[in-house]
Amino acid sequence: MAVAELSTPSFINTRLVHPSKLSFSTTHLHSHRRLAFPPLSRTHNARISCSLAPNQVQAPAPAQTEEPKNKPECYGVFCLTYDLKAEEETKSWKKLINVAVSGAAGMISNHLLFKLASGEVFGADQPVALKLLGSERSFEALEGVAMELEDSLFPLLREVIISIDPYEVFQDVDWALLIGAKPRGPGMERADLLDINGQIFAAQGKALNAVASRNVKVIVVGNPCNTNALICLKNAPNIPAKNFHALTRLDENRAKCQLALKAGVFYDKVSNVTIWGNHSTTQVPDFLNARIDGLPVKEVIKDHKWLEEEFTHKVQTRGGALIKKWGRSSAASTSVSIVDAIKSLVNPTPEGDWFSSGVYTTGNPYGIAEDIVFSMPCRSKGDGDYELVKDIKFDDYLLKRITKSEAELLAEKRCVGHLIGQGIAFCDLPEDTMLPGEM
Amino acid sequence: MAVAELSTPSFINTRLVHPSKLSFSTTHLHSHRRLAFPPLSRTHNARISCSLAPNQVQAPAPAQTEEPKNKPECYGVFCLTYDLKAEEETKSWKKLINVAVSGAAGMISNHLLFKLASGEVFGADQPVALKLLGSERSFEALEGVAMELEDSLFPLLREVIISIDPYEVFQDVDWALLIGAKPRGPGMERADLLDINGQIFAAQGKALNAVASRNVKVIVVGNPCNTNALICLKNAPNIPAKNFHALTRLDENRAKCQLALKAGVFYDKVSNVTIWGNHSTTQVPDFLNARIDGLPVKEVIKDHKWLEEEFTHKVQTRGGALIKKWGRSSAASTSVSIVDAIKSLVNPTPEGDWFSSGVYTTGNPYGIAEDIVFSMPCRSKGDGDYELVKDIKFDDYLLKRITKSEAELLAEKRCVGHLIGQGIAFCDLPEDTMLPGEM
Repeated sequence: MAVAELSTPSFINTRLVHPSKLSFSTTHLHSHRRLAFPPLSRTHNARISCSLAPNQVQAPAPAQTEEPKNKPECYGVFCLTYDLKAEEETKSWKKLINVAVSGAAGMISNHLLFKLASGEVFGADQPVALKLLGSERSFEALEGVAMELEDSLFPLLREVIISIDPYEVFQDVDWALLIGAKPRGPGMERADLLDINGQIFAAQGKALNAVASRNVKVIVVGNPCNTNALICLKNAPNIPAKNFHALTRLDENRAKCQLALKAGVFYDKVSNVTIWGNHSTTQVPDFLNARIDGLPVKEVIKDHKWLEEEFTHKVQTRGGALIKKWGRSSAASTSVSIVDAIKSLVNPTPEGDWFSSGVYTTGNPYGIAEDIVFSMPCRSKGDGDYELVKDIKFDDYLLKRITKSEAELLAEKRCVGHLIGQGIAFCDLPEDTMLPGEM
Repeated sequence: MAVAELSTPSFINTRLVHPSKLSFSTTHLHSHRRLAFPPLSRTHNARISCSLAPNQVQAPAPAQTEEPKNKPECYGVFCLTYDLKAEEETKSWKKLINVAVSGAAGMISNHLLFKLASGEVFGADQPVALKLLGSERSFEALEGVAMELEDSLFPLLREVIISIDPYEVFQDVDWALLIGAKPRGPGMERADLLDINGQIFAAQGKALNAVASRNVKVIVVGNPCNTNALICLKNAPNIPAKNFHALTRLDENRAKCQLALKAGVFYDKVSNVTIWGNHSTTQVPDFLNARIDGLPVKEVIKDHKWLEEEFTHKVQTRGGALIKKWGRSSAASTSVSIVDAIKSLVNPTPEGDWFSSGVYTTGNPYGIAEDIVFSMPCRSKGDGDYELVKDIKFDDYLLKRITKSEAELLAEKRCVGHLIGQGIAFCDLPEDTMLPGEM
């Protein structure tokens, strides 16, 4: 870090200069990057230090006492200072929230970032800073994403930084949306994939532990997401384990749609759908507790054979079917489901309903093995936190399937023992249960 | 049409069947498409006739007297009936609006459709029907898009139809967002491109003229968009010419961002930016009338050499620079700018400001040649209509550039004489002025 700063002395103090005296452009950024590069710097990032000065955050923000050391860098127009105070008179702005997105140059992020910036997720009075984490390979694409964010003129988007260093990107973040993961290469075993991605999520967990907000909420999307989330939280002991989620919301949404199709109702009539377990083919879409128009699904859909033998398969194979049609994986609907997952944590859950999320099992009321990340039914008061739903029915069919997914996650956990401080990995995964197109 | 309907007798009346008696799934769609295909049908579309029955539109809708003949087909879960009336008690729904999107399987649409469905564009109380127009080649991808829309569970999205027949897709549409266009092939001249795309937009104009709402608003995005819009409106004589727009909003947004960067202010301080003329390298971003924090740009940016020599180039080459970085064209920010363009027509323009749109010149107060589509400054009362802004300054520099873009559009018009009922085409385009990456 210190090295990187040394390479950019003329820009470090630009926040003290009156903005009208400056004229930044992306060309500064380019020449700058060249300066900041090997062999001096371990980081690889945009190098203009001129983002939001602390005194420009409006009153509700606690006084900032820390030095702006290791401050990540802003991009282009987002380096310009702006005056939240002046706007305060006409509009009551909330305190800026910091959202980190990994895999930021990928297709899911390309949908998600624009939703985060538009106000669709956190509301029309919530200024947002986006911190984009990419890879060495994707860095130029990250710049392209930042340029498109500039050109979109989102009034709520007050800061954009791009970097390949998680310690910079995660600095003070309130949300970390971890989308980036290595895809499986040719001939790669599932165990290899668990290891490779596990390394990434171990490193990101350590970075979150070191620099993120102590109350950061983490949503892991990169697969295998449950075990990646477990690795991440194990490497972030100073952040509550409860704050880590593995995304199963797309599975929930798909399950709701399939139940609606089968029942012949619009999907807004389907509620109380839980996805239990792993985001893999062992996942368990729960039709025992689900409701259609307030009635148990089994009372509305009389074809129980379909529920038991086809429904789960339909949910699991949806992604694969889509890739076949569309030629690409489901970036748009995945990003919608990430938005749904965030909204479910920042808005109160509707009375009597719940949502699914892969969360830490320790202390769960269902008898599921502790110390894994398992998708379960959650409710939120809208404060970012959640509680598990207590009043859940189980039958033999449901329990048997849940047990199978639990066994799989325990096996995945043994594969990554070396990444979660539990000794040497012992990998005995019985079969490949990756979802189609999500390798 | 009649032929296509004959091929699907068992589905024609499904709207009369109680929904709980039915169980549609996308597999029906597949087998169905095979039935509906060559050699019988000229159309190529999803064949389940079970979308919203007229009596399910709530009270404010005018009584529908027409027969549901030639009704386009719905997709998957959107074929299911739903009861707007029941919801009326808790929420006041507006009348469903019909939005057609061409090039619906492309990347711009992949962003735009999800924005239209989420409520971001037309508001949280505005139910939307999406009508997706694709090509024979892209039909399977269209199905993929529809599947992702299903899986997104947007409460406001009440109907999705997919088709390659503009007469089906444009039936009763309130908005037509014409994104699809043929890209330029290797060795293809600009004149060829004008002709090929002109044919498409002539056909779409005829279809709009025949079946769209008499007050449909049309936004042409497919390039060359100004001349495509002209061709489209000339082929739709029963729709007011004023209702046709060529998208120059992305250029406006980019111009605002570049002015903000140069002035060292946040982009929300930049207003009154007009893009004049053609969406090509002859476009004229107007810094004479533009304002920064309420002041004329030239009073804030003292570097007039930059304004005259670099600014326009920066705006024009932004798309090309982005492709270089990101490896793809600017689908996300283009779709944001389409949303901006729609919102500018359905919300009152802020006092003293305006927005740019390529509109029909006949009757314009600036002395620009009549009977072309030219980007000019507009204001709207929020009723979908607009008026041209009167109080505009011109100087020699601005006029000279406007004249050049006007000459280009008149030349383009001569190239497509055969498509607008003005005799034989005579094509004498002096040079290639396509924007980088927008061929």
